[in-house]
Amino acid sequence: MAQVGPSVKKRDSVTSQIPDEWRIPALPPPENLPDVTKEYIRQYLTSREVEITESDAVEIVQKTTTGIWKAKELDAHFGRYCTPVGPLHGLPVGLKDTIHVKGVETTMGYVGWVGTFEGDKHREKYKNIEATVAAHLRTLGQRAILYVETSAPQASCSVETANNIIGYTLNPQNRAVTTGGSSGGEGALIAFRGSAAGLGTDIGASIRLPSHFNGLHCLKPSYYRLPLRGIATPMDGQDTAPFVVGPMATTPRATSLLTKSLLSCEPWLSDPLVHEIPWRDDIYDQTLRRANGVGQRLAFGILRSDGVVNPQPPVARALDVVEKAIRRAGHEVIEFSLPNYLKALQLFFKVCFIDGAADFLNQFALSGEPPEPAMLPVFHTTSPKIQDAAEIMHTNKAIRAYCAQFLDHWNGTAKSTATGQPIDAIIMPISPSAAPKKGRVKWLGYASIINLLDYASYALPVLRVDRCVDLYGPGPHTPLGDEDEFVHHDYDPDLYHGAPEKKVLALGESLTDATS
Amino acid sequence: MAQVGPSVKKRDSVTSQIPDEWRIPALPPPENLPDVTKEYIRQYLTSREVEITESDAVEIVQKTTTGIWKAKELDAHFGRYCTPVGPLHGLPVGLKDTIHVKGVETTMGYVGWVGTFEGDKHREKYKNIEATVAAHLRTLGQRAILYVETSAPQASCSVETANNIIGYTLNPQNRAVTTGGSSGGEGALIAFRGSAAGLGTDIGASIRLPSHFNGLHCLKPSYYRLPLRGIATPMDGQDTAPFVVGPMATTPRATSLLTKSLLSCEPWLSDPLVHEIPWRDDIYDQTLRRANGVGQRLAFGILRSDGVVNPQPPVARALDVVEKAIRRAGHEVIEFSLPNYLKALQLFFKVCFIDGAADFLNQFALSGEPPEPAMLPVFHTTSPKIQDAAEIMHTNKAIRAYCAQFLDHWNGTAKSTATGQPIDAIIMPISPSAAPKKGRVKWLGYASIINLLDYASYALPVLRVDRCVDLYGPGPHTPLGDEDEFVHHDYDPDLYHGAPEKKVLALGESLTDATS
Repeated sequence: MAQVGPSVKKRDSVTSQIPDEWRIPALPPPENLPDVTKEYIRQYLTSREVEITESDAVEIVQKTTTGIWKAKELDAHFGRYCTPVGPLHGLPVGLKDTIHVKGVETTMGYVGWVGTFEGDKHREKYKNIEATVAAHLRTLGQRAILYVETSAPQASCSVETANNIIGYTLNPQNRAVTTGGSSGGEGALIAFRGSAAGLGTDIGASIRLPSHFNGLHCLKPSYYRLPLRGIATPMDGQDTAPFVVGPMATTPRATSLLTKSLLSCEPWLSDPLVHEIPWRDDIYDQTLRRANGVGQRLAFGILRSDGVVNPQPPVARALDVVEKAIRRAGHEVIEFSLPNYLKALQLFFKVCFIDGAADFLNQFALSGEPPEPAMLPVFHTTSPKIQDAAEIMHTNKAIRAYCAQFLDHWNGTAKSTATGQPIDAIIMPISPSAAPKKGRVKWLGYASIINLLDYASYALPVLRVDRCVDLYGPGPHTPLGDEDEFVHHDYDPDLYHGAPEKKVLALGESLTDATS
Repeated sequence: MAQVGPSVKKRDSVTSQIPDEWRIPALPPPENLPDVTKEYIRQYLTSREVEITESDAVEIVQKTTTGIWKAKELDAHFGRYCTPVGPLHGLPVGLKDTIHVKGVETTMGYVGWVGTFEGDKHREKYKNIEATVAAHLRTLGQRAILYVETSAPQASCSVETANNIIGYTLNPQNRAVTTGGSSGGEGALIAFRGSAAGLGTDIGASIRLPSHFNGLHCLKPSYYRLPLRGIATPMDGQDTAPFVVGPMATTPRATSLLTKSLLSCEPWLSDPLVHEIPWRDDIYDQTLRRANGVGQRLAFGILRSDGVVNPQPPVARALDVVEKAIRRAGHEVIEFSLPNYLKALQLFFKVCFIDGAADFLNQFALSGEPPEPAMLPVFHTTSPKIQDAAEIMHTNKAIRAYCAQFLDHWNGTAKSTATGQPIDAIIMPISPSAAPKKGRVKWLGYASIINLLDYASYALPVLRVDRCVDLYGPGPHTPLGDEDEFVHHDYDPDLYHGAPEKKVLALGESLTDATS
């Protein structure tokens, strides 16, 4: 096949950068060794290395910025000035392979992008573009920190992570299931404790789904809150529902650290699309105080089902767990539903795949590579391309009207809360299931609607699947529809036992510490 | 003609709302009485009325919020609570006839919209929609303040203000010339002191041009800073370079008052597109302190010509006056030019008229009205409609790239300033001329590029044209091109003598008080 040459070359060039003494022996097959995290990986590490890899990003910078842990390249600065280079001094941060870094090749999972800048063979941009987030991270922590680019699926547009370059990325806590996508390389690496934190991108679930499937924390910010400049995206120029970039990490305070640090660089001075909204300690502190019972209590809407695909038992139980925790803390929870949901989802997929996937096909044609099986469902989701200016205008208007209707609906919750104020956030699933087997992520509805609405969304792990507890009730299942029937029957308590399960708090990370 | 019926009816219904005793006698022709402001209008007013009409918005609210001036409908509240209803207590504010107000018909200059909601004959929305800005103004100042909707040109998309409903709006300070457009009714009314302040909308110059031609202050905010929800716009759904709404007034502090007051209503809680950026006293105060010589001095770029159409003598002189004032205050001025300007303007007009003006023609067809002569030049500017999704994506990408290039260019001024910091603002003309005769606004380049870039832009009057001073130098004119030749020869010192001339400070209104 035409793509074999460049993909083999790329794979070899990536693996050749890993010193032999760092490599672990060939793994047994997944069925014999599902979980390669924790005990398994620790056997190859010194106790000092385990201390480092199992620290969260905040612990790491607490030690690197006080000189307890040294980073060779930063020693000179620290020795001289007795101050850290920046708030992320020496923190290793992983970046999804869509984020351009000077000197590094970005493929976004396309074979045809190997040896090029986004498929462009002219040399002036190749390995010569640096995303604003990458530049900011260098400023914040010195160049040592940008140490790895993590695998992205073909086109950065799949609910799994597979490409014709390095293949399929498995879930390190259960190699029988998927790591999710599209920021799945990042999710797998952090779950594996190969990194304490990293950046992914999200257009419909792509930060949240791999965080959810790997038991991580993440923030999907709203549009243009963090700088997208210099990050590759598919269907580039589709600006109605654009990608966003956001942090993924092992703890909530680590997602806050990354977000706050990036905003301290005033990204709006480098990327003209970023809104001039600094990190606001006052809002963060006030929300935290309210979460802790000082001042007006909080009110949450809870979305138990989107009405199309009901959550599997562990997801439903996680919602209950969160609800109880919130009530126990003295806050209010009211039922919440999504107005005009299916119509809005149709608008989302229509505008998301504005060109009817023509861009995907163009990029495949660069190398002749076929779509990966994990990519194929995207083509089923894809709407016919938008025909003309009148149609895009009509679609934009309809989306704007939906967002306004939704905001009115949100504000209307004031009629149902005890305080007479609208809810502060929605609690909802990211997905109706924990990480399923390859090819079995069937429903993107929960996560995607939040992109269309452009709300900030925080995902946090709640519990692990328990094969003895998380069971369907007795009696027959009446499916809501085809997708619901599939997801219902796809649940396997034995397969999922021990898998992390997560919830979205559409609240921004300010509330994270308080609710986790 | 088909449109005669509804337009006559509409005109009659508007004029019938003006009490007979408020009407002034028929005016002599413009050539006999060019200026109907000041002395002319004062003859019909009591000294008390003159005191009111010649106060700016800040003086008015100083008096209405302290009970010195009473507004009948607010008396009860004030008498009872001894506090004003809000910061705009009793302030009359004019609204462009694109801003929906409950109980009021909005035509946006289309005959076909008379008796309908934006051409839609179903009754549920007719006179039943209230723009978020209108709702906020009611909250801020009680309903008395929304007292007039001011004429908009056909489609709210013209450099003059003419429609088939109430005709052509002249410039009240010189009825031989235009009031500009598209917020030209608002500009004329405020210049006439029929209102102290109002709101207009702007996609390419539409707040700034009528402010410029009428000697007013205005702010064109960046996209979605103030709420557009419930405001009619042409080519609705063209979201790449959207309209913005902003204040027009007789003093800079009045534009600040309106902006600050509207932001105090937290418009992002009502319009989902508004960025959550409150009024920031810290930035305002710091900028003012710097302008007054405390802390780091300011640096300005000056754009003397866009290289396509040179400014006429009074505009060039106004730039000099501003430059000298800035230098005198101890600040720095460096030369500034626009990178890739013409290519960027083409992108602007391409995306602005994304549908090749199909929307205009659809609205004309509702009544059968013809385009007004003032509207016709828009059809010359209009690009062919964008053909498909790939083309809109390509255009969006090109615009994004231009905005990034421009920001880099702006940041690059750090190499030329004494402080080593980038400039704080650009000083530039809004238009190469003061208000010309009907049909003679030929060049929109200066103002429109700021919309494409989405920078906040402040316009302030600098001087009045002086027929003895503002003259071309001796020697032949070498035109830069056809438009330049037209504008050069269109200058008439006698016609323009005494006309206001203005400059844009792309600085936001925080700097206004300091530089005006």
